Amino acid sequence: MKLTEYAEYDGLGLAELVRSGQVSVRELTQTALEAIHALNPQLNAVIETFDESPDNPDGQGSGPFQGVPFLIKDVVLHCEGRKCEMGSRLAKGLVAPHDTDLMKRFRAAGFVTLGRTAVPEMAFNVATESLLTGPSRNPWDTTRMTGGSSGGAAAAVAAGMVPIAHANDGGGSTRIPAACCGLVGLKPTRGRTPIGPDAADGLNGLGIEHVVTRSVRDCAAVLDATEGPGCGDPYQIPRPQRPYQDEVGTARNPLKIAYTATSFSGDKVDPEMAESLKKTAVTCAALGHHVEEAQPVIHYDAFFDATMKIWCANIASWIDQLVALTGRTASSDYLESATLACYDYGKSLTAGDLLEAFAVMNQISRTVAPFFDQYDLLLTPTTGLLTQPIGTYNANAPGWTAQDWGEKIFSFGAFTPLFNMTGQPAISLPLQMSASGLPIGHQFVAPFGREDLLFRLAGQLEQELPWIGRKPACGLWTMEE
Amino acid sequence: MKLTEYAEYDGLGLAELVRSGQVSVRELTQTALEAIHALNPQLNAVIETFDESPDNPDGQGSGPFQGVPFLIKDVVLHCEGRKCEMGSRLAKGLVAPHDTDLMKRFRAAGFVTLGRTAVPEMAFNVATESLLTGPSRNPWDTTRMTGGSSGGAAAAVAAGMVPIAHANDGGGSTRIPAACCGLVGLKPTRGRTPIGPDAADGLNGLGIEHVVTRSVRDCAAVLDATEGPGCGDPYQIPRPQRPYQDEVGTARNPLKIAYTATSFSGDKVDPEMAESLKKTAVTCAALGHHVEEAQPVIHYDAFFDATMKIWCANIASWIDQLVALTGRTASSDYLESATLACYDYGKSLTAGDLLEAFAVMNQISRTVAPFFDQYDLLLTPTTGLLTQPIGTYNANAPGWTAQDWGEKIFSFGAFTPLFNMTGQPAISLPLQMSASGLPIGHQFVAPFGREDLLFRLAGQLEQELPWIGRKPACGLWTMEE
Repeated sequence: MKLTEYAEYDGLGLAELVRSGQVSVRELTQTALEAIHALNPQLNAVIETFDESPDNPDGQGSGPFQGVPFLIKDVVLHCEGRKCEMGSRLAKGLVAPHDTDLMKRFRAAGFVTLGRTAVPEMAFNVATESLLTGPSRNPWDTTRMTGGSSGGAAAAVAAGMVPIAHANDGGGSTRIPAACCGLVGLKPTRGRTPIGPDAADGLNGLGIEHVVTRSVRDCAAVLDATEGPGCGDPYQIPRPQRPYQDEVGTARNPLKIAYTATSFSGDKVDPEMAESLKKTAVTCAALGHHVEEAQPVIHYDAFFDATMKIWCANIASWIDQLVALTGRTASSDYLESATLACYDYGKSLTAGDLLEAFAVMNQISRTVAPFFDQYDLLLTPTTGLLTQPIGTYNANAPGWTAQDWGEKIFSFGAFTPLFNMTGQPAISLPLQMSASGLPIGHQFVAPFGREDLLFRLAGQLEQELPWIGRKPACGLWTMEE
Repeated sequence: MKLTEYAEYDGLGLAELVRSGQVSVRELTQTALEAIHALNPQLNAVIETFDESPDNPDGQGSGPFQGVPFLIKDVVLHCEGRKCEMGSRLAKGLVAPHDTDLMKRFRAAGFVTLGRTAVPEMAFNVATESLLTGPSRNPWDTTRMTGGSSGGAAAAVAAGMVPIAHANDGGGSTRIPAACCGLVGLKPTRGRTPIGPDAADGLNGLGIEHVVTRSVRDCAAVLDATEGPGCGDPYQIPRPQRPYQDEVGTARNPLKIAYTATSFSGDKVDPEMAESLKKTAVTCAALGHHVEEAQPVIHYDAFFDATMKIWCANIASWIDQLVALTGRTASSDYLESATLACYDYGKSLTAGDLLEAFAVMNQISRTVAPFFDQYDLLLTPTTGLLTQPIGTYNANAPGWTAQDWGEKIFSFGAFTPLFNMTGQPAISLPLQMSASGLPIGHQFVAPFGREDLLFRLAGQLEQELPWIGRKPACGLWTMEE
């Protein structure tokens, strides 16, 4: 299979080729590995390829993604016998003893896992530039960052190495790189996808796993294949009434959509981002939806403080476990400057501090929920800025405090982390482009459990504002064969 | 209405009298207040009556419990303008500024709230004997304890003051007093009933609210009236497919029931309790169910340690809030000896300690869940002992450490707190009596979300092993009028 041909298909498209016998799983696997090896030297998105023995090499199972090439993000999810290094020298070389539940579902869906993608250290950055693996580069402009923390995944999918890659999102980590790299990135509802058995929840409910994709239908179909509680999960949430794939683009009733280009901290985004948001709002209105300017109002400082406490307490807990496991030290020998600052802050917190953060999380969620009694969806920019030059968010610059680091990265992902706190589903769609030719992502947020609404509208917008024809500078589409 | 007549009806029975015009809400309210005033001097179950202005005095709303007398437990739930003192001198006189979501649903169900019931301090005892309000006494033997922490509620319902009273359960606090006082006590599935807006969850998921009742159908009908997420809840769980009331006693397929009289710490219960459990198991088998001896095996010490950490961190957090609110001190002037020990322990915990406890909670839940792939239900004694003399669990005895206190109270409620950790629904039914004439409660535990199974079997057992004819020594039934 030619690389340029391979690049024209999304995941379901490739699966159809396999199912109809037009391509074998072996050939597809080889093509994908070839694509990775061709592009990765420029992008540094994939940190390990499973060349000799891809996971699930025959695309076993009767799943909808039989034989489709796939990559896993190097944090949270575990694949038995494969390394999971969390972007950190502290975790270098550690091998996962068993599959986590989501990995089992990816296998059952038929995915052939070909490698691991880069992450920032402990996933706590909007750029993907760890000291362990070096900077991942954006296929649209290799001098710029990919976003984070699923930055390796996003670069790989945007460049055409694989159609779909695993991602997760504890503050925007799926949506932000999707926006930076021109992809579809959904953070599902809290509890939608399993995280067990190693954990009960991600970051005390902030984090949730899914994928980045190029098409809306892939995003929906992967969720159909992976949603639902795992055995012993602390909560079960209601399952969808029909497959999400059937929702894509469905026009039922007009939706009531609020939009805002003012971040929850009160900052206005740059004029080009605001202008592009209006264009999307106008398109939504033209599709028959009710669109008006409005947003939920929160106590931003309390929200920020609580999010930092929860993140840093968890980072400290991970680090302590890694120290115990490896005999290494929580020091600059193994950790970047910002991570060490977050570790120290996390270690300083009492149980009471953490419970106080949960109480704020509750108050904020109760403040935001009634807004969604008035509106079906909220539309915002995904990020406050276009993707920035590599090195802009340097976690190893000296002198970081946890507070300064948090403010720095929150200023980029200004619109995303609120919905990690509320647990609502939110999707970033690559609906606009900057004058400079960089992707601009717009985020839609739905009420708890209502991914169906997101897929309905996302499918409509994929038709009205198609991004499929736009190709990055560094990708399979522009390669000579 | 005569008191002896009033005592013959359960909640739905009284509601039917109101609906059909056989009794007015005003008359029913007066009868219930009369019953409370007649019995409470001996039982000390109700700590305040709303004589002059009961809450929801007309039984407003079109709910199924229109006009039915009701009492609220003095912890967690808030009723606007009413005191909530948590059994503690530290909270003495504090008034709730607004209704919590569950209180609104009790109102909408039509309940007329007539007062508050006694609780042990911070609800952390298996006896209900706070220094603030003094010991509540068991209607079956007033020298004995009522169980805890919903001990006031259980004594009030068992004695006939009201047919239904609010309760909650963070370690057995609904099931244990139900067992001690011969009542039906359900701990619903985690997330089934709302706890907002003041909190996101009870005790980080250990605690959940419901009621104690004399009949199974009341237990089911109240859950029908109150289940479902509140606005801004952190999770939503699937709603029942049909009303729980319709499940009561329904014989569908035979159930596969495991039973054990060995507690999760490995202790055997006393022979009379074990013997009575066998009787219940035999009845279940006679009803056509598959019954065999089996139980999930857990790492008990880790379980106990994690439960203590979560409880004590939360108690410390409540106390710190009360100190800030009242200007009082966290000292023996305001707190009992065991509570102070738990406070000190809770204050000593770091955020990392709490996260570690959550990790254990996850591991334990993942250990227990597969057991319920093999069995529909688990049958255990509710408590390891019969109700004990008042003073046996004296939280103000000198010298308690948190550890000693926890071990003491866990040894009584040996079978209940595991299912607070797993979030599974569990019901205590008053199926047997001791030779000495005290009620013995048996607990049935279902998989997450499967209250329907509990109600099916509970209704069958209510027919086969009826408790309705058994009357306590101190109750309306034995009063001369």
